[in-house]
Amino acid sequence: MWDRLWINLNIATMMPATDASDDPYGCIHDAAIATSGSRIAWIGARADLPAAPDTLAHTVIDGHGHWMTPGLIDAHTHIIYAGDRSTEFEKRLNGVSYTEIARQGGGILSTVTNTRAASEDTLLSLAMERAQRMIRAGTTTIEVKSGYGLTLEDELKQLRVARRLGEVLPVYVHTTFLGAHAFPPEYVDRQDDYVSLLIDVVLPRAAAEGLVDSVDAFCENIAFGPAQVRRLFDRAMELQLPVRIHADQLSDTGGGSLAAQYRALSADHVEYVSEAGVMDMAQAGTIAMLLPGAFYFIREKHAPPVALFRRHGVAMGLATDCNPGTSPATSLTAIMNMACTLFRMTPAEALAAVTRIGARGLNLQDSTGRLATGMMADMAIWNVSGPHELSYWIGGLTPITRIFHGVPDAT
Amino acid sequence: MWDRLWINLNIATMMPATDASDDPYGCIHDAAIATSGSRIAWIGARADLPAAPDTLAHTVIDGHGHWMTPGLIDAHTHIIYAGDRSTEFEKRLNGVSYTEIARQGGGILSTVTNTRAASEDTLLSLAMERAQRMIRAGTTTIEVKSGYGLTLEDELKQLRVARRLGEVLPVYVHTTFLGAHAFPPEYVDRQDDYVSLLIDVVLPRAAAEGLVDSVDAFCENIAFGPAQVRRLFDRAMELQLPVRIHADQLSDTGGGSLAAQYRALSADHVEYVSEAGVMDMAQAGTIAMLLPGAFYFIREKHAPPVALFRRHGVAMGLATDCNPGTSPATSLTAIMNMACTLFRMTPAEALAAVTRIGARGLNLQDSTGRLATGMMADMAIWNVSGPHELSYWIGGLTPITRIFHGVPDAT
Ligand SMILES: [Zn+2]
Ligand SMILES: [Zn+2]
Repeated sequence: MWDRLWINLNIATMMPATDASDDPYGCIHDAAIATSGSRIAWIGARADLPAAPDTLAHTVIDGHGHWMTPGLIDAHTHIIYAGDRSTEFEKRLNGVSYTEIARQGGGILSTVTNTRAASEDTLLSLAMERAQRMIRAGTTTIEVKSGYGLTLEDELKQLRVARRLGEVLPVYVHTTFLGAHAFPPEYVDRQDDYVSLLIDVVLPRAAAEGLVDSVDAFCENIAFGPAQVRRLFDRAMELQLPVRIHADQLSDTGGGSLAAQYRALSADHVEYVSEAGVMDMAQAGTIAMLLPGAFYFIREKHAPPVALFRRHGVAMGLATDCNPGTSPATSLTAIMNMACTLFRMTPAEALAAVTRIGARGLNLQDSTGRLATGMMADMAIWNVSGPHELSYWIGGLTPITRIFHGVPDAT
Repeated sequence: MWDRLWINLNIATMMPATDASDDPYGCIHDAAIATSGSRIAWIGARADLPAAPDTLAHTVIDGHGHWMTPGLIDAHTHIIYAGDRSTEFEKRLNGVSYTEIARQGGGILSTVTNTRAASEDTLLSLAMERAQRMIRAGTTTIEVKSGYGLTLEDELKQLRVARRLGEVLPVYVHTTFLGAHAFPPEYVDRQDDYVSLLIDVVLPRAAAEGLVDSVDAFCENIAFGPAQVRRLFDRAMELQLPVRIHADQLSDTGGGSLAAQYRALSADHVEYVSEAGVMDMAQAGTIAMLLPGAFYFIREKHAPPVALFRRHGVAMGLATDCNPGTSPATSLTAIMNMACTLFRMTPAEALAAVTRIGARGLNLQDSTGRLATGMMADMAIWNVSGPHELSYWIGGLTPITRIFHGVPDAT
């Protein structure tokens, strides 16, 4: 017998259409879906159920005609940090210059200072608050980056907190090593030495402790140069760790092509990626992970080349980029609305971006991001007229129910 | 004895500073606040409480160091409607032109058709869903406009639903007659006759039934011209009803000055208002009700003249403008973030805009929008580092607790 069986609902499976229907959502109307343990045991039209619902499952749940989607996947976040940058946000709006804020110890280095000073337990409780907001907004999988420690111990501390987050909350966590996020103050005049520290000490140790699911770097004129990123990615390859990259956000540094060369899971931001970079990404199967929250918050004007991604067949993902300096955001549906409004993505692209494509960006395409028999039972149920409505509301929607690994959240 | 007493919290009273502190939030740290029935019975520093908390109130509530603000006031909404425009949103993003959508019966007239066809009970249940989202986001007062009926019976129907909304939900509703929202198809070739119908029949009848707290008009080249608006407002004056106006959103039609001439409570949108209009508004005490949701959703580029409003002392309000065509938004904190990010308002201006100023926009300044003894006990409690953080999060925050007329929401 199945554990749970939902009936009287519609499902956007996000399975690619296998017929000529051209339905980008993989819709099943008047559907049923069953779970056994943490997995989907059956999914299809209610009329195709093999027997009466009551005889098939311990618990039968009425979906009241609502819509079910896969649980949402947030494939780019920086939620492990201490310190409060909202004061800095207020200062800027009161006319205090960036220079003055930096002089007062603001900016990313204030986050580094506060994160270094915080205990693992403090960081966990701060991150839990953010992750819980994401969970309430329908997210079932979160990528979590380090990058505010920038020392051996502090990077390990952040990654341990990320792992614990997945133990204490009903959410799957993918950890990303982002030691190459910024140069720490101690290494400001010897940047290559910092890259050596990452390569020789921090990354191998973090990997040995099982704390690293992927390796990321911030490649930009104001951050790590392509040669430095290559050194790090070469080491990641030796350690058999997949890579991803913050690239071409403020200028074209060839980040798309660099990502492709290492078969990166994703190249993130990519507002300024060139057509050559896009073509290389298409060849390599690298996802363009678009982050409209940061684009909006820092008032960028140059949108990522969505038309080029479509033309060359680069899959587009979307994430909150939740971070204190440039994207204080926790709701993926709010981000979907921004992707449609600001980047002119379609609602179908936006939903794929936070489900099927997001899963690929975390190498989880065989377990989550689509609703099919055998997949993890990560779902969300929404009071909407169709899956397109998830992209329609400014500020995002909240699901009626979220289901993680087969278990609905208590409400 | 007081009914409820909150201790161990900080309060942003939003009372104007009476000393040299220059604190725009009217903060009380380590505060206490008590309610008797629906009103605030006591507010001040906890140390100034006249006796031990347990001896003062039936229920003492620990605020856990969180921040309390006035309940939020949404002074411009169109939440009474039927029909689904999210499909139109998706069509546009899939490349269907406005012309083609209009040909298919889309746009505002589709909302009019669906609203006319819906029963009062259907409209109520649809509006309740939207209002409940607003309530969950911290709103305690909602302005609700008609304007999708455009016949005597259908305008009355919308206004009756607005009144019922305030009876069935824990929220205060201010009703606004917006018969001059669009010309109904029946009157497309005799626009002045429609204005006569409003003046001679619909408005007087609605007012006689006690359904009208204020009168609004959409003044724009594509809608009602200044002369038509004057006819309507003259009638409103005869009926002793205050007015407000949708003005200068897409072009400068002199809406700011027109609003001032009638001492309008607010001139709304006002992206294109001239400096002369701003000065007239300042003289008349007319509020500039800014609507960044619509600005964002329709990708306007011309922001309202915030610097002029500041220079001439025009108070700025903020509202969701919740409507199916140009601003599907229910969270005022999401709107506050947009006002700061897109219009460069400060967090203090944004919070005043949805509390103290919003109340003025509805003629409720003596009962809500500030926390002081004798005011209605409409409050919200937030897990934030300070009141500025309410403007910081993309997509908005949700309060821990909302209190309406002294009664905390069940959670
Ligand atoms: Zn990032
Ligand atoms: Zn409006």
